[in-house]
Amino acid sequence: MKTPSPLPALLEAPLDRASAEPLQRQLCCRIKDAIVAGHLPAGLRLPATRVLAQMLVVSRNTASMAYEHLLAEGYVLADRQGTVVAALRTRAHVPAEATATPFPRLANRLAGLRASATTAADRTVLRPGVPALAQFPQAHWRLALAHAARMATPNMFNYGDPLGQLALRAAIASHLAITRGVHCTAAQVVVTEGAQEALTLCVRVITNPGDTAWVEDPGYRGAKSALRAGDLRVLPKRLDAEGLHFSATDWRVEQPRLIYTTPSHQYPLGTVMSVARRLALMAAAQAHGAWIIEDDYDSEFRHSGEPIRAMQGLVADAPVLYVGTFSKTMFPSLRLGFLVLPQRLQPLLEQPLRELLRGGHTHEQLAMARFMESGHFVRHLARMQRLYRQRQQALRTALGQHLGIPHSIEGGRGGLHLCVRFAADYADVAVAAAAQRYGMAPQALSTFALAPQAQDNGLVLGYGNTPVETMEPLVKRLAEILKDLA
Amino acid sequence: MKTPSPLPALLEAPLDRASAEPLQRQLCCRIKDAIVAGHLPAGLRLPATRVLAQMLVVSRNTASMAYEHLLAEGYVLADRQGTVVAALRTRAHVPAEATATPFPRLANRLAGLRASATTAADRTVLRPGVPALAQFPQAHWRLALAHAARMATPNMFNYGDPLGQLALRAAIASHLAITRGVHCTAAQVVVTEGAQEALTLCVRVITNPGDTAWVEDPGYRGAKSALRAGDLRVLPKRLDAEGLHFSATDWRVEQPRLIYTTPSHQYPLGTVMSVARRLALMAAAQAHGAWIIEDDYDSEFRHSGEPIRAMQGLVADAPVLYVGTFSKTMFPSLRLGFLVLPQRLQPLLEQPLRELLRGGHTHEQLAMARFMESGHFVRHLARMQRLYRQRQQALRTALGQHLGIPHSIEGGRGGLHLCVRFAADYADVAVAAAAQRYGMAPQALSTFALAPQAQDNGLVLGYGNTPVETMEPLVKRLAEILKDLA
Repeated sequence: MKTPSPLPALLEAPLDRASAEPLQRQLCCRIKDAIVAGHLPAGLRLPATRVLAQMLVVSRNTASMAYEHLLAEGYVLADRQGTVVAALRTRAHVPAEATATPFPRLANRLAGLRASATTAADRTVLRPGVPALAQFPQAHWRLALAHAARMATPNMFNYGDPLGQLALRAAIASHLAITRGVHCTAAQVVVTEGAQEALTLCVRVITNPGDTAWVEDPGYRGAKSALRAGDLRVLPKRLDAEGLHFSATDWRVEQPRLIYTTPSHQYPLGTVMSVARRLALMAAAQAHGAWIIEDDYDSEFRHSGEPIRAMQGLVADAPVLYVGTFSKTMFPSLRLGFLVLPQRLQPLLEQPLRELLRGGHTHEQLAMARFMESGHFVRHLARMQRLYRQRQQALRTALGQHLGIPHSIEGGRGGLHLCVRFAADYADVAVAAAAQRYGMAPQALSTFALAPQAQDNGLVLGYGNTPVETMEPLVKRLAEILKDLA
Repeated sequence: MKTPSPLPALLEAPLDRASAEPLQRQLCCRIKDAIVAGHLPAGLRLPATRVLAQMLVVSRNTASMAYEHLLAEGYVLADRQGTVVAALRTRAHVPAEATATPFPRLANRLAGLRASATTAADRTVLRPGVPALAQFPQAHWRLALAHAARMATPNMFNYGDPLGQLALRAAIASHLAITRGVHCTAAQVVVTEGAQEALTLCVRVITNPGDTAWVEDPGYRGAKSALRAGDLRVLPKRLDAEGLHFSATDWRVEQPRLIYTTPSHQYPLGTVMSVARRLALMAAAQAHGAWIIEDDYDSEFRHSGEPIRAMQGLVADAPVLYVGTFSKTMFPSLRLGFLVLPQRLQPLLEQPLRELLRGGHTHEQLAMARFMESGHFVRHLARMQRLYRQRQQALRTALGQHLGIPHSIEGGRGGLHLCVRFAADYADVAVAAAAQRYGMAPQALSTFALAPQAQDNGLVLGYGNTPVETMEPLVKRLAEILKDLA
């Protein structure tokens, strides 16, 4: 027998006999590491198992098993004489000019997504979009969850219907019909991970890369992210008193495929889209083969004026994908939202959506259906509506008495936020940044616009999670910040 | 005063005084419906509130309020003489040639997603990818959830960190280091909605529409859906004994940007990629600026052979996006998975991912972290590994004794499924369809291939949720199906 090449020192060091890791595995790992690191070059003949066993004071069986594993994994090769290190193409062998390739390459769309840095998510004081977290009826919700757990069959632990539990889809359809005049069957409702997934799904099923999308400007940043992530050409559309503004020429020249709008309570300005505009928008979309995303994100909380029926229900089979969320009516970390498919698309989209979605969260979905059916949901909404109305009133009063500079308040017919506009002398981004240092999270209005104009200067103030008694001191603090910036 | 135009009959029908809906709202709705339907044409003067009140036997205040709402919503206009129906552009006014536009238009990518119809999700007998649902330790899991609920602060109901709760990210990093040799910090771990969302994120951050992706063929259908939904050119790559096969020419000609692979236990064939191939694949990807998705979907359950360390940990800063899931180790409806970002991408991707993701499921994530830290997770894995090994053995025995036709069994070193190949005389799609009629859900091997070859004929059989004692009767049933098809 030929003498095997001597193994390097690293293999001769004693194995750790006190370790829980079997000696065989320790041996395997050491040899692998040495091969990958290049200490044991390709073609090197390893000692026979008998020799290795003697060298390392292990049983011959341990040595054999280690070689067998190395062989199975391709680190070594066996020939008639024994065991040889395999030729592994490690990174060390990559030619120099190849490693010089520009790296890392990432998706072009990320540039658009990197733009809108926001305040830390755990700051909720004056933050728009956050509901009254401490007022959520946890006990009732836990009972609904416990009920779902008691009813659980093993199959409830499986993926479940990708489109959502039917009980919840039916409860959503019924709730929307009563409160929003939405016309749909449970089959048209798709349960999603909040509104954001619903928006992403709209982009995926309706558009191709390079298509044009219209967004309200200023408008919801999350929608722009979803549209950009779908490689769309995102065009800002300004708002007038009736809502999203467009001309007949716009349709011909820009040819939008998807239109994102918040007609019930424009985000963030609070404009309510007139019925005339709603009908005109739907008629034009219909005529040009475009689709409208109606994001009805906070319509459950009306503070003044009669609710206008959702666009989706204004005409039969509207060209509208209706999006809603439980993030504000329940709580954000629940991650439950929904998409109502247009009647004529439902049969076309059912199968593709089943390929894209995985369902799940069955317990939470069944608990949510029960929470709705038992009336807890509507009672919670009514209680929150009163609370938010008080909070909005307190914020309005504090702004009027203490802000100290000329301003106009926009919106407030519904929802959880007001928009305060003031002169561009006070740069809103600077105001928001300063407010952040005091633990507040108002958002600068200009950051909601793709093409900000002079009047897009101000603050979007959320009152959902901000108690009445704190409004006055908070607004006084904002007034000081504004004074310092003057 | 001029006499107002008479209102149509629909407005003169009595209002429903027994209804819970206020008369004012009933009145509003009727008038709106009549306007939208065109029964009250634009320019029509509505009766004075006093007259309307008399006609409908309601208070004058009710009539006034109804008009006020209609005015606010833009259905009517006010002039000095009173109230006039506004000119709404309803769908009836869309010109005929416009409505003839081809409609609905949908995204091109849906065609690819419509292809792979699968069996009903609630059939789990012999279905690949479904774990032992009835064996999941519900009681321990509920305790972990209850603990998270007891610790809950109001902020836990907020969106939470979009990348996942830090406690869970740290627990995952630690678990992966120990069991899979993955090298990462908690900061590189992104918690996702199962593996599917992780795959979608990989596509979104790495690729642009039209880029080329390689997939193993046969391979995981969900990966192909995710890649197609990202508008990629998806090219099938065949497998040899060492795993995904490629040549130097392939890289130059096809220029893949993303490579999807399941090296630990190829899905569905069960091939274990050799270390040589792993290193060669990573070196080539590095050289050509491509990225590898390593989907380590069932590596926790090893039945024979030593586990090979994940590709991600084989070399330093590997060009690998490592994807894992709790769908098989816990249960599918939990919807928890994870993506480990390459070290050099983490700082670049943090902000875009925060824009795309919304976090949430905070209670479940904290419960999962606790479940891992307390050792329940590892104990459950060990128990399941024994169970799955028994089930696989029972399935192998039953196939050997009762299938009745020549076949080969592929894979089985790990996981929850075996792949059985047989002659193309028995068309696998027909076998799977017939099996479905008996309540079984094996999958036809050919449906996993984009470009099926003759040898891609067989069944992918899951044993995760199929008890030992049922294997023999199930395989006998399959044998009968095969005999009938011969």
